[in-house]
Amino acid sequence: MDNENRVILNVGGIRHETYMHVLKKIPATRLSRLTPNLANYDPVLNEYFFDRHPGVFSMILNYYRTGRLHYPTNVCGPLFEEELEFWGLDANQVEPCCWMVYTQHRDTQATLAVIESLDLDGDPPTQEEIAKKFGWEDDYHSDTLSRWQQIKPRVWALFDEPWSIFYRMHEVETSGYTNYKKAIGADKPYTIAHPYFFFIDLICNIWFTIELVIRSIFCPSFHRFVRSPLTIIDIFCTSAFYVELILHTILIQTGSLVTIDFLSMICVLRLFKLTQHFSGLKILIQTFKASAQELILLVFFVILAIVIFAALVYYAERSQQNQHNQFSSIGVGLWWSLITISTVGFGDMVPKTYLGMVVGSLCALMGVLTIALPVPVIVSNFSNLYSHAQARAKLPKKRRRVLQA
Amino acid sequence: MDNENRVILNVGGIRHETYMHVLKKIPATRLSRLTPNLANYDPVLNEYFFDRHPGVFSMILNYYRTGRLHYPTNVCGPLFEEELEFWGLDANQVEPCCWMVYTQHRDTQATLAVIESLDLDGDPPTQEEIAKKFGWEDDYHSDTLSRWQQIKPRVWALFDEPWSIFYRMHEVETSGYTNYKKAIGADKPYTIAHPYFFFIDLICNIWFTIELVIRSIFCPSFHRFVRSPLTIIDIFCTSAFYVELILHTILIQTGSLVTIDFLSMICVLRLFKLTQHFSGLKILIQTFKASAQELILLVFFVILAIVIFAALVYYAERSQQNQHNQFSSIGVGLWWSLITISTVGFGDMVPKTYLGMVVGSLCALMGVLTIALPVPVIVSNFSNLYSHAQARAKLPKKRRRVLQA
Amino acid sequence: MDNENRVILNVGGIRHETYMHVLKKIPATRLSRLTPNLANYDPVLNEYFFDRHPGVFSMILNYYRTGRLHYPTNVCGPLFEEELEFWGLDANQVEPCCWMVYTQHRDTQATLAVIESLDLDGDPPTQEEIAKKFGWEDDYHSDTLSRWQQIKPRVWALFDEPWSIFYRMHEVETSGYTNYKKAIGADKPYTIAHPYFFFIDLICNIWFTIELVIRSIFCPSFHRFVRSPLTIIDIFCTSAFYVELILHTILIQTGSLVTIDFLSMICVLRLFKLTQHFSGLKILIQTFKASAQELILLVFFVILAIVIFAALVYYAERSQQNQHNQFSSIGVGLWWSLITISTVGFGDMVPKTYLGMVVGSLCALMGVLTIALPVPVIVSNFSNLYSHAQARAKLPKKRRRVLQA
Amino acid sequence: MDNENRVILNVGGIRHETYMHVLKKIPATRLSRLTPNLANYDPVLNEYFFDRHPGVFSMILNYYRTGRLHYPTNVCGPLFEEELEFWGLDANQVEPCCWMVYTQHRDTQATLAVIESLDLDGDPPTQEEIAKKFGWEDDYHSDTLSRWQQIKPRVWALFDEPWSIFYRMHEVETSGYTNYKKAIGADKPYTIAHPYFFFIDLICNIWFTIELVIRSIFCPSFHRFVRSPLTIIDIFCTSAFYVELILHTILIQTGSLVTIDFLSMICVLRLFKLTQHFSGLKILIQTFKASAQELILLVFFVILAIVIFAALVYYAERSQQNQHNQFSSIGVGLWWSLITISTVGFGDMVPKTYLGMVVGSLCALMGVLTIALPVPVIVSNFSNLYSHAQARAKLPKKRRRVLQA
Ligand SMILES: [K+]
Ligand SMILES: [K+]
Repeated sequence: MDNENRVILNVGGIRHETYMHVLKKIPATRLSRLTPNLANYDPVLNEYFFDRHPGVFSMILNYYRTGRLHYPTNVCGPLFEEELEFWGLDANQVEPCCWMVYTQHRDTQATLAVIESLDLDGDPPTQEEIAKKFGWEDDYHSDTLSRWQQIKPRVWALFDEPWSIFYRMHEVETSGYTNYKKAIGADKPYTIAHPYFFFIDLICNIWFTIELVIRSIFCPSFHRFVRSPLTIIDIFCTSAFYVELILHTILIQTGSLVTIDFLSMICVLRLFKLTQHFSGLKILIQTFKASAQELILLVFFVILAIVIFAALVYYAERSQQNQHNQFSSIGVGLWWSLITISTVGFGDMVPKTYLGMVVGSLCALMGVLTIALPVPVIVSNFSNLYSHAQARAKLPKKRRRVLQA
Repeated sequence: MDNENRVILNVGGIRHETYMHVLKKIPATRLSRLTPNLANYDPVLNEYFFDRHPGVFSMILNYYRTGRLHYPTNVCGPLFEEELEFWGLDANQVEPCCWMVYTQHRDTQATLAVIESLDLDGDPPTQEEIAKKFGWEDDYHSDTLSRWQQIKPRVWALFDEPWSIFYRMHEVETSGYTNYKKAIGADKPYTIAHPYFFFIDLICNIWFTIELVIRSIFCPSFHRFVRSPLTIIDIFCTSAFYVELILHTILIQTGSLVTIDFLSMICVLRLFKLTQHFSGLKILIQTFKASAQELILLVFFVILAIVIFAALVYYAERSQQNQHNQFSSIGVGLWWSLITISTVGFGDMVPKTYLGMVVGSLCALMGVLTIALPVPVIVSNFSNLYSHAQARAKLPKKRRRVLQA
Repeated sequence: MDNENRVILNVGGIRHETYMHVLKKIPATRLSRLTPNLANYDPVLNEYFFDRHPGVFSMILNYYRTGRLHYPTNVCGPLFEEELEFWGLDANQVEPCCWMVYTQHRDTQATLAVIESLDLDGDPPTQEEIAKKFGWEDDYHSDTLSRWQQIKPRVWALFDEPWSIFYRMHEVETSGYTNYKKAIGADKPYTIAHPYFFFIDLICNIWFTIELVIRSIFCPSFHRFVRSPLTIIDIFCTSAFYVELILHTILIQTGSLVTIDFLSMICVLRLFKLTQHFSGLKILIQTFKASAQELILLVFFVILAIVIFAALVYYAERSQQNQHNQFSSIGVGLWWSLITISTVGFGDMVPKTYLGMVVGSLCALMGVLTIALPVPVIVSNFSNLYSHAQARAKLPKKRRRVLQA
Repeated sequence: MDNENRVILNVGGIRHETYMHVLKKIPATRLSRLTPNLANYDPVLNEYFFDRHPGVFSMILNYYRTGRLHYPTNVCGPLFEEELEFWGLDANQVEPCCWMVYTQHRDTQATLAVIESLDLDGDPPTQEEIAKKFGWEDDYHSDTLSRWQQIKPRVWALFDEPWSIFYRMHEVETSGYTNYKKAIGADKPYTIAHPYFFFIDLICNIWFTIELVIRSIFCPSFHRFVRSPLTIIDIFCTSAFYVELILHTILIQTGSLVTIDFLSMICVLRLFKLTQHFSGLKILIQTFKASAQELILLVFFVILAIVIFAALVYYAERSQQNQHNQFSSIGVGLWWSLITISTVGFGDMVPKTYLGMVVGSLCALMGVLTIALPVPVIVSNFSNLYSHAQARAKLPKKRRRVLQA
């Protein structure tokens, strides 16, 4: 009787055996619907043949037997999921003890998608890709690109492709001009630059203006171009020069010049333009995007810790009469506690009372933990992205296709 | 003769063979009691059939053969333990070389239990869960909830559920009032606040008092409510205001005010209330609970190191005559050695003698090791909890049930 | 012809097939000596039966096929080595790509041996263990322990077992006295202590002397007792008091007192006595022993780096005329470069010239790397020891024995 | 019909089954070309026999079935690649989810090659190896080495082998002389050394000159010897002495002496000679070579961050009128931001304005991330090299050869 109930499943040549009632445990799956009428039933050997991975099937059959879906660790996650799909099982039914295995390869796939999107290899785009970028796919495929449609991408490429002369020139100008402005600013603070410097400034900014105009005409999408952070910085910095020029003409030098100096702080961000074709930085930026949640956690921990320690040290230093008390407000206490927590410890403000020292000691120790806890999560995100990018760089771009027989 | 003794064990379709005397090695287990009278004995094929995982059985049979229980690393720990249980073996008999594998999945299960208890997803509780919380399970199931029993949870929810208006108001008040007090305290130290500020203080504290009274009436368990740390802080901070008020009325302003200022330090802890519905912080607190032993180890190492280095630097600085000796006592030496060991290094106290510099150098190097050694254990506890919580968030809450055929 | 040469090896029920000439490749092993005359040859099925692990055998047969011994990663190392031993193969013949797997489990076994030797559970020793410790094994087994031999261990236990009252008293005295001396020393430097303090000192030291005498009489081995570092510190500190006493009686107070103060630095090490029964510290000490090579590497890297940077910063600061040059010698340069490399950065000495700043920048960056490189190796040694100790604590002490049939 | 199409593949005794059309999916491979005419076809059992690893074959057959090549994780990478090669498949066709597994063992092989090249065990070279080094392989094999060819390697060995007396002497001289020069320089800056010191200098440098001449005559390749960095330092340092000597004779002491002092900075690098036979340092240098890309990334991140923060803090500190502004130029801002980012924090320059403090806080926090991100990649390179070197040291040098039957 017991033997009547037995089923032999020949999976890729390996014969697995179980009872029919076991296969009925998970309804609406491939195995629960087995009948001798199926094409893969062999009446001679009394077995069902499936052309699948035999080793992985042990785990799948075990799900039927025990009602618990565990992931095998000797095969790749996606391979197991492919098998689960074939057998009509839901990959989400995985047991809690295998959650990590399950999510690890999900994360790997997310990482791979990110790397793919980063376009790290820097091959020049094909004609088709260019047409797609400009939104002329239909015209490209019907070979009806107008003269303008043929010239526009070429001019744009001159200003945008990292190997073109104008692009390189723009980079050199940007970094040169930014550093030159900084040097001028540094040597002669609070004064109008020498007339000679003024003309250099004027020429550079006129060139930047022309460049901006050309780029805005030949860009693939004006809408997207104008909203890009780098364009905004460019427009801001160039117009800042004209505003300054006008103000100087109208007003005589006043303290309000300081505010303009402050505006020029933002122009330093122009340097970010130099880095957009550097793959390491792309990965860094992607890491920060992927670790947004952990960064918020880090900032949250740090803010919570510095607010508490700032208040504690402020009251602690006031608890005892001392003339050298440097903690005049909770505001500077925040600065002190952040500098202590990050273990920088400038020493410009130091607690002088015993109670303050106890607070400082706790702050230094908590700092080690507060920062040490979320950082490894971010670091592992970076390492993960970086090592996958490195791994991909070692493999051939094109892969042989397998025939779909 | 030898062949007579042979046993064929058909486990899930795969045939394992061994000698009968091997199976007798571990007495009182399923395999040591095999007889041809069993229902799963097949006299035609001369084999015993077991509907279990065939791959894992290799490891189990190997335990009989060699007398050593090793864990396989290609399947999940709980799966192997399930098999061990079926075969009547004790999971604790594992060999020392596999201890880590064994405890790792035990730890995983402990971690999962912790995450389950944290209630990170924040779904609103069902009627049943609410009744359970208030201890009215019997009444709920018999549908005999009095009017008061129906109103009480609703009022409580208004003050306790993170999405209710009163709860949010309470949060805003708490943070606003704490920061306002700090600002006042910071700007005008040692003086009575302006009458205008006094009325704000008064109104806020009256509101806090009313809130406390309402919460104490409608709470599920008065006993547990009163003993909760957050309630204690609330009561303390509110009563501190009234005490201060009375003291001001009776006494004229004296130096004793400073002690009240010091008391208000504790009110900063009110800010912790804001964080009780933030999952990152819940994980952090859980990490510190789970890492209690490692934290003690860290604190113990640090105390041992700072006591020794404080004494060493104190004597070292006295060994040579120098007027600028800043190490006037071992007490301040403790502060210096902790600040050096944590690599903060404020620089307010620095050894001036060569011997003191040698002590300082050793202290800086030891610091790197003393702190670097236990921190990774705590960090890995945090990462473990955090990544499991992240993994769980990606999976569906409800899982399909497997029929128990 | 080809089929004639085929061999079927039934290993634990799984049939492996290969050619006879393949098995001859590695001479003088169990498989190279196969003949049909063996007891485990089955002429009906034309196969050889071996009652061993079938999965692992794939890897062993692969060694014969390809001439390369790879370790499987789905089973525990020792399990594989047991199989290798059965088949007469040498575990050292492993391929370079599997060296890490091979040494990892060797290291695990070394770690386990270390943990076993640490005696972390602290069970009280049995009568037999005590007799063994005192070297009276023969007398114990022949039951001829003299009265003295029976009393001696009991008295010793009073002073040595961590739960006895004398032991605890000794701990309290040691820490109390050390801290008291430090406090006295700290408050009244360079002066003779008050007569009242002198009598406390005298009584304490007389008690320490008596204790030392008792311990030296009742210790299991006088030779080993006297050479133990903790005894040496005890003798040194106690005698230091008497020496000081005599010197004070003979001499009037001179500057030479400072040297005695310096000697008392070593007495701080007495605090180490308090830690000998704390398992965390035992593991820490063991870590430093096991990481001796890495610690030397760390110290070597640090010395190399600080010598080079000390010289560089010294010359760099002299390269430009500046009155505020704080780098008066290479000696203080060493202090500066160590403090910079360990990222403590006290700020008592700072380069003032541009060249010095460049050197300082390099020093700060190199510091991060120099220290970051060998530390993880030491940290992983600690984590390894610690987690194995934790794992062992969760398992039962006594294990069921498997019958050797 | 379906069954007609079935193929049985007996791989090492385990029977795998699939359909013939599946094997045709990947053309031009061993399995796609299967015909019954092959010698390994068994017409009785209707199967093809292959003497290969049966477990790994599951993964290979799965590639045919699903068109995706996944790596198994229970066997070593090179073992799988050997199998892929046998079956005529391309290891590069691996799926993205297995890239990491694929590159990990590629990296392991690269690491092993590096360790092999480092020659860490320090066995003395054989006669043949010496002949090869000097480029006299042909003469050595034909036994026609001239007298000069026999003497030259011996003299060279005296000066180059780490155990020879001249080599050790040279090491002692180098370190002694360098330290002596530093001590002299440190004690008497800006003055000509005492005549007594001058004669020591003269004798040392004459000996260094003689040594250099002998080494240049007996070196295996003059070309390679002269271009070696250590020889260049030697020549530079020795000639620097003579140049100094001549300048002193001609000129009277002027400020130009400072430049010579500056030159002697480079002579400190002579100390690197002492380290060329220390295996830990060899691994460190190799790590830096292998991590060149990551080091560039680190330096790039640091430069980008310090340039931005230097500019930000400079403008921030100018935004508010404050007399104590220490940020007089962006140049010193770079120094401050690097010292803050590396968490050294000397405290010689500290922002005084609120805006500057905000910039400083961001700089301290970014520093933790900027440096924490690329460092683990470098650290893992070091750990990898180091642990492989450690693993190799535990294994026997000579391995038993497997007969190639
Ligand atoms: K620091
Ligand atoms: K510092």
